[in-house]
Amino acid sequence: MQLSKSRRIRSTPYSRRVDQAGAKAFTVYNHMLLPTLFESLEADYWHLCEHVQVWDVSVERQVELRGPDAARLAQLMTPRDLSKIDLLQGKYAPICNADGFILNDPIVIKLAEDRFWISIADSDVKFFAAGLAQGYGLDVEVFEPDVFPLAVQGPKAEELTARIFGESVRSTGFFRGEMLEFRGSKFYVARSGWSKQGGFEIYLDNPGLAEPLWDALFEAGEDLHVRAGCPHGVERLEAGLLSYGNDMDEFDTPFECGLDSYLNLNAEIESLSLPALRDKANNRRRKLVGLAFSQALDLAANTNQVGGIDIIENGRCIGEIRSQTWSYRFQKQLAFAMLPIDYIEQNSGIKIDGQHSDFHPIPFDTSQL
Amino acid sequence: MQLSKSRRIRSTPYSRRVDQAGAKAFTVYNHMLLPTLFESLEADYWHLCEHVQVWDVSVERQVELRGPDAARLAQLMTPRDLSKIDLLQGKYAPICNADGFILNDPIVIKLAEDRFWISIADSDVKFFAAGLAQGYGLDVEVFEPDVFPLAVQGPKAEELTARIFGESVRSTGFFRGEMLEFRGSKFYVARSGWSKQGGFEIYLDNPGLAEPLWDALFEAGEDLHVRAGCPHGVERLEAGLLSYGNDMDEFDTPFECGLDSYLNLNAEIESLSLPALRDKANNRRRKLVGLAFSQALDLAANTNQVGGIDIIENGRCIGEIRSQTWSYRFQKQLAFAMLPIDYIEQNSGIKIDGQHSDFHPIPFDTSQL
Repeated sequence: MQLSKSRRIRSTPYSRRVDQAGAKAFTVYNHMLLPTLFESLEADYWHLCEHVQVWDVSVERQVELRGPDAARLAQLMTPRDLSKIDLLQGKYAPICNADGFILNDPIVIKLAEDRFWISIADSDVKFFAAGLAQGYGLDVEVFEPDVFPLAVQGPKAEELTARIFGESVRSTGFFRGEMLEFRGSKFYVARSGWSKQGGFEIYLDNPGLAEPLWDALFEAGEDLHVRAGCPHGVERLEAGLLSYGNDMDEFDTPFECGLDSYLNLNAEIESLSLPALRDKANNRRRKLVGLAFSQALDLAANTNQVGGIDIIENGRCIGEIRSQTWSYRFQKQLAFAMLPIDYIEQNSGIKIDGQHSDFHPIPFDTSQL
Repeated sequence: MQLSKSRRIRSTPYSRRVDQAGAKAFTVYNHMLLPTLFESLEADYWHLCEHVQVWDVSVERQVELRGPDAARLAQLMTPRDLSKIDLLQGKYAPICNADGFILNDPIVIKLAEDRFWISIADSDVKFFAAGLAQGYGLDVEVFEPDVFPLAVQGPKAEELTARIFGESVRSTGFFRGEMLEFRGSKFYVARSGWSKQGGFEIYLDNPGLAEPLWDALFEAGEDLHVRAGCPHGVERLEAGLLSYGNDMDEFDTPFECGLDSYLNLNAEIESLSLPALRDKANNRRRKLVGLAFSQALDLAANTNQVGGIDIIENGRCIGEIRSQTWSYRFQKQLAFAMLPIDYIEQNSGIKIDGQHSDFHPIPFDTSQL
């Protein structure tokens, strides 16, 4: 499928390097280009799992909250307790509306007592924040700063990041970060990233240093077999990483998506979704589960209007496959599917396209695959 | 540029017909697919100007406001006075934040005293509306209903629409509409659409009738040479239609984009952007102007990080070309550019890539091209 370019779909400060590295396909995410393919899906996969890749994830936009009410506004938007977040720590914190539905699933990063970045998935969270700030009369600025994250991912990511930013990154904990220097500018560098291979994200806020940083990583990483990459659809399913818009959207609650451990239902915090979520905690109807089949599924005919795949049983749609892929490592077709809890409790598994799958937790227990 | 598909980038109820009609390229708009090319850019253009086309503009999502405070919430978001809007009338109404910057430029449609549709350009206006409703404690529901507009555009659009929906459409005024029947369902049908060739938009809210409606239009319009089309980048520049995200964004004010006539600065209305806009009315620095060159411009090297084209003079960036295209009709390269008002007032035109252009109003006075 051919993508038409225009200013409305923004490039990034790394776009020239991404093109030079041979990006073959893209998606659009937060009104911006995100590469999706370099050599081949399988070659990209094994390389990510064995070496180190540099990813242009500028699409991971920051919504900055700055001012005396920044912490209050951040807390209003999420049912996760942010009161104990440390300076330069990130927390995965679903953004929910007053009905308890998910509007985004970002990382919230505390840069100062009065300054937060909400590092977002694909939806305009800044509009929600701006509307709330206006309506509640909060003393806070809401804006999207010029920050362009670059991810370094893969088993050799720590080695490569240490070569550029120094040895201190080796002792950085998960979702923790430091302000580290590159050519006279200091960037927030965190142990994070949308893969389970390990790695760091560099929150570059000086576009003029985008290509120098890219080039420095490639020069320093030559012996590590560094190359350009991108979030990988196979690796992330194997790892159980959810994708907002694919696996969950504004018609789902955190409970349905298995995000219970990221809510603090009993916390005494001012979060606008908590009242609805406390109600919904006792009234669960659906759940996202993992499925694994020994052969690829042929389900194109069941593609629904949204782009998911309807699961039909006895002529009735009982659920939806939201993401699926062939796993190179496990030689199985893996899927995330939304199904009624009653169905999951009453059956030992499901038959789709003539093949059986047990119900798996997300993330998968890979010893069971 | 190849586009990777996923559920996050939604299909529409017309997608199968769009594919069958031979769509060759797409863009992503409001998290959804919008076709951009069928036969060729030029063939699509002349056909649109001579016959009639059916456009899948499902991406034109509706933000529905429903409840006692619906009218108040709609008014809060726009500096245009909505108090005199009639039932089933649409009004072009920029959405602005408290700083007076543009967040979207939708058509606001009044369906009932307590029910509005905001028919949006490419940004998540529902989040802004939901945040405001929550913060102000308004009694209103905010949601995105399952409405999938289909546009019928071109000089024969009235004839074709009348054949399906009856003769009453012929007397419908611009941005006016009626509830009209198709196979037992009533849809809002308005004289509107993103071309200057004339036409209608059918706000289909029954996905099951999407393909029947598409097919009925093609059967009824065979002698009118009906075919599938899409919003056209050349026709819209010639016609002076602005594109949110391309020609204007959240860093621009309505004044800078020439939208003065869609603001009611002196109205006694509760609009959150009016105070800032009243200040900015006396402090204008930039303006979007039309440019026309006798030959195509070769400016790829000046593409900026956002995807626009920097206008460089004496080594300094003085402005930005935001959209440009070769006009088949006028045999000129047309562009919309943001330039300082001082520059426009002090110069009779501008030289770019060795070619001169006068400053033109938007829309162009085509007798001057």
